[in-house]
Order: sequence, then C-alpha cells, then structure tokens
Amino acid sequence: MSLLLIAKNRDMNSLKEALLEIDPNLDVEIWPRVENKERVTFAVSWNHPEKVLQNYPNLRAVSSLGAGVNHLLSDEAISEDISLTRIVIPSLKDQMAEYVLNAVQNYRLHTARYVDQKREGFWSKHEPIPKSDCTVGVMGLGEIGVEVSKRLLVNGFEVVGYSRSKKLIDDVETYLGDELDEFLSKTNVLVCLLPLTKETNGILDLDIFKKMKKPSYLINVARGAHLVEEDLVYALDTGALNGATLDVFEEEPLPSNHLFWNRPKIMITPHVASITDPKEAAGLIVENYKRSLSGMELLFEVDREKGY
Amino acid sequence: MSLLLIAKNRDMNSLKEALLEIDPNLDVEIWPRVENKERVTFAVSWNHPEKVLQNYPNLRAVSSLGAGVNHLLSDEAISEDISLTRIVIPSLKDQMAEYVLNAVQNYRLHTARYVDQKREGFWSKHEPIPKSDCTVGVMGLGEIGVEVSKRLLVNGFEVVGYSRSKKLIDDVETYLGDELDEFLSKTNVLVCLLPLTKETNGILDLDIFKKMKKPSYLINVARGAHLVEEDLVYALDTGALNGATLDVFEEEPLPSNHLFWNRPKIMITPHVASITDPKEAAGLIVENYKRSLSGMELLFEVDREKGY
Repeated sequence: MSLLLIAKNRDMNSLKEALLEIDPNLDVEIWPRVENKERVTFAVSWNHPEKVLQNYPNLRAVSSLGAGVNHLLSDEAISEDISLTRIVIPSLKDQMAEYVLNAVQNYRLHTARYVDQKREGFWSKHEPIPKSDCTVGVMGLGEIGVEVSKRLLVNGFEVVGYSRSKKLIDDVETYLGDELDEFLSKTNVLVCLLPLTKETNGILDLDIFKKMKKPSYLINVARGAHLVEEDLVYALDTGALNGATLDVFEEEPLPSNHLFWNRPKIMITPHVASITDPKEAAGLIVENYKRSLSGMELLFEVDREKGY
Repeated sequence: MSLLLIAKNRDMNSLKEALLEIDPNLDVEIWPRVENKERVTFAVSWNHPEKVLQNYPNLRAVSSLGAGVNHLLSDEAISEDISLTRIVIPSLKDQMAEYVLNAVQNYRLHTARYVDQKREGFWSKHEPIPKSDCTVGVMGLGEIGVEVSKRLLVNGFEVVGYSRSKKLIDDVETYLGDELDEFLSKTNVLVCLLPLTKETNGILDLDIFKKMKKPSYLINVARGAHLVEEDLVYALDTGALNGATLDVFEEEPLPSNHLFWNRPKIMITPHVASITDPKEAAGLIVENYKRSLSGMELLFEVDREKGY
C-alpha cells in the first residue's frame, strides 16, 4: 500500500518528509515517478494535471492539499466511488484572515499608492477611506469565512455575511440564498471565499458589482473562475467598482500579457493568501490515510452534491 | 478673549468650524491674520513656526493639536508660566494601532514587493516571514503604546514593551530604564512611539539596531528626530537591519533629493499614521479653553520636566 503526492508546480518533498516523520513506515511516492500504480490507495493532490489519476486500480481516496476541491470534482478520471477530502487546519484560516484584513486595510490606507509615491520620490497625503465606507461583505461562511469575519470585527470593521445555508455569527448580519441583493446593498468591500461549484462559477460579475454599496471594492481569495474577468475590467473602467485585490486567477501564473497587470486599480498577489504548511497538514493526511485503509469514514470528507 | 489656531502646512478652517459648532460665541482666529494679540489667551498649535507666539501678553495656555508636544517645549518664546496640553482622543490611538499593525503585516507579507511586481507584470511568490520572527517591541507605553500593543496581541503577534516607568499590560513583557538591551534582544520589529525629549532625541541609532533580535525591522511613527538617519542607511546597507517603515522625518515634507527615497528597503508614508480629527478634538479644546479662562487645571497637561 502506498500514498501518492501529486502537484504541478510545487515541491512535494517537504510534505513527504513531514509524513515520514509522523510514521517512518509509510510508503510515500511523489508523482510522476510512480513505481507501482497498483499499490497506491491514497493520493494527495495540489492542482494535479487532469486525468493523471487514471489507471490506479486500488485508489480509495484523494485529499486536496488545500481547502478547495474543485480540481478533484472536475476531473472525470476520479470516479464517484473514490472518497474526496480536504485540509482543514488552523493555519489556513489564520493566514486567510490576516490576508483579507491586510487587503482591506491597504485599500483603506492607500498602501499601494504610497509604495508608488515612494518609488517616485513624491510626498502627498491621502485621506483614509472612512471605516463607515468599508463595511465588509463576506461571501462564503465556512470555517474560513467565519474566521475572516471575526478577525475583521476585532479590528473595528463592520461585517455582513452571505452563505448557502443560514449561519449565525455574533455581531454579523447574515443573509442566504435569495437575499443576495440585500447583502450586496450593505457591502462596500466584497470578499469572495466561496467554494467553486457550478452555481458559484462566474458569480462575481458586473451585475453584482453594480448592486454593491458605494464606494465598492472586491477581494477575491477563492478561485479565479469565480470572477468574470472582463466584467471586472469594465466595472473598474466605468467606475462601478473602485478597485480590487486578487490572489487567484483563471490561469496561474497570470500570463504576462494579461490586461490585469496594467490596471492601476488592481492589486495582484500570486496565490499566496493561504498556503498549507506541510508539517501541520501531515498529521491530518496520515490520519485520513489510515482511516481509508481500515474502511473508516474520512475526516472533512467532501459532499459531491454540494461540491465542497 | 480669543482662541488662536496656528499651523504651518494645514488648513485650520475645519477646526474653527468644529469649535464654533460647539460654542457659537467663541472668538476664534486663524494665524497669521490676528487682529488683536492682546485678546488671545489660548492657542492651538500644529508645528507652528518658532517664536511666532512672541508678544501675546495674555496667553495662558497652548495645546498641541496632536499627541506630541516637542514643538512647544523647544520654543523659547513660550515661557514656563504658560500651560501646555495635548490632544488625547480615541481616534488617535485607534489610527496608530491600525497603522502599526498594517506596517508589521506588510513587512511580514511582502506587500511592497508585490506592488512592485504588479507594476512589472511579474509573478513570483515569497514566503511570509514567520510570526515567530516578528516579535514586536513597542518603545513608549503611553496611551497610544498600550493601544498599539493590544491590537498586535489580538492579531496573534508577540509583543514586548519598553518605557520610562514600569507599565503592566496583560500578555506583554515590559522593560524599563536600564533593561533596554534585554528588551532589544527580544525585539524583531521595533516600533518607536516615544515622546521626543532630550533623552530620546537620536535614540534610534546603529547601537540599538545591532542589539535587536534578527531578522530586524524598524517602524518609526513618533518623530523624525528620534532617528539618526545616516545610521539607518548604514544599518540597512550592512544588513544589520532588514528594512524600515517611516512616517516621520527630520524635515517634512521629506526633501525630494533625500537618500531615503532611493532605498528599496525603506517604506515611506507622508506623516499620515495618525491625524487629529477636528470634530473629535474640538470638544477637548473648548473644554481646556474654558478651564484656562477660569483658572482650572487643564486636561492632559504636559509635565515640562518629563517632556510629555
């Protein structure tokens, strides 16, 4: 029996080391050098190339290395009898909360503008955007969305929330389902933390931007496919939206000729908002590997119907 | 009897309006258009030109428009029988806490680097600096220093503190007087919030930078004169210090030929960390004006011996 680690653009050696530190008897292989496909019963994937998991006859379960699982659900080579799971660890929530708070504050305090002025040797003050014009609307109230909301609250921001099923969070007005317009009418800074599903694909579009409270700002830290890229550019150019911070894109790395690069109102980070720490994730992966070997239910198993 | 508002580079009309809104019967003048110097009994100053307060025979008190009072203490034209006071309002503490937290997070998360990469159309990830390498040392534990410490704590940073007299803050190890070296040995990110006095002038020097825990970073939000500017450049160039965020400078606006502009490891903001809101300050100013007229003790009066 072996455990397979698969990633396109990421070195999996540190994860392998962390797994072996927990159980030196584990048999861990790193794709694409797989000696015996028949021995693989469990795979850990981070943006694996589609269909690469074909011809693993004894594969029982696949774990995403992050919170998102859309790359697993969309891969037809992963049949429905294979269990899917994902990583839920404190540091993922904590990093995301810090990233979002930092993005909101950088918008409010004009950080990118001051970085540019610094480079140009130019001294000019800009009024911070009042906190009363920075009500944050968090879309997606899973474990990460709740943590992000709490972090914003303790830092003095007003927060509203939107999710598929009703969630109760202290001091956060929450909306669900068809209450989207009401949620948007109270949202100055929209933070997308939704899982990527059929329903949420392309949800960040011009219609949504127009319904937001002004001044309005977008932060996307979920998946690139949530955003209709040309709608964002149109919204920025027409003033429907004041700016955006994006950490995720349809194509990553973002192509060097992409028009986002030349839009001064867009802040870009290279998918770094929340990075799984191998040492912290290893324990959960080993636990789920052993559970799958003994036929037990996995921790944080994905509901294929819901898509997360 | 009149109240005089003095500032070199700042429009005082909004403060005048705010004062008159509280008491329409006030007689408020804005320097340099002073009709009758003899009628002025109270002045509010923001970086007033030195000696401009000469020949006000009935001046009883001067209030700084901010938390700092060094510009009042260093002016020989303000005799010792004139009471000095300053502005202590919640928003000043709150703004400073947000600014410092944002500066620490931007250092940790490489924000300025990502802004530069965005401009260049360049996609490259950088590991965040671990929080364990970001212990923040707050120098100066007055009302603002305490607020800054608390804000950092709730955001998961370790904080140590240094002050002239012993202060107790939950979860913060505090040092005083000759324990400076011990404080520095635990400090990765040094935040200067000291009042500017004879003792603290030039305190941020190479000796201090060398004694800090590595990796080390400086945030100066107090006064430009706290920092020995050439020592900062030397420390950055020799690697004794990893970077700095500066909001205050010896000369403001920072001259366009100043060598700070060309140092990539320095982040510059144009003295915006904490700006007094006229509406919020007006109540305290009117209260102190009336107290001075009736010979009462002023609120937040400055101790000339201590220098703050």
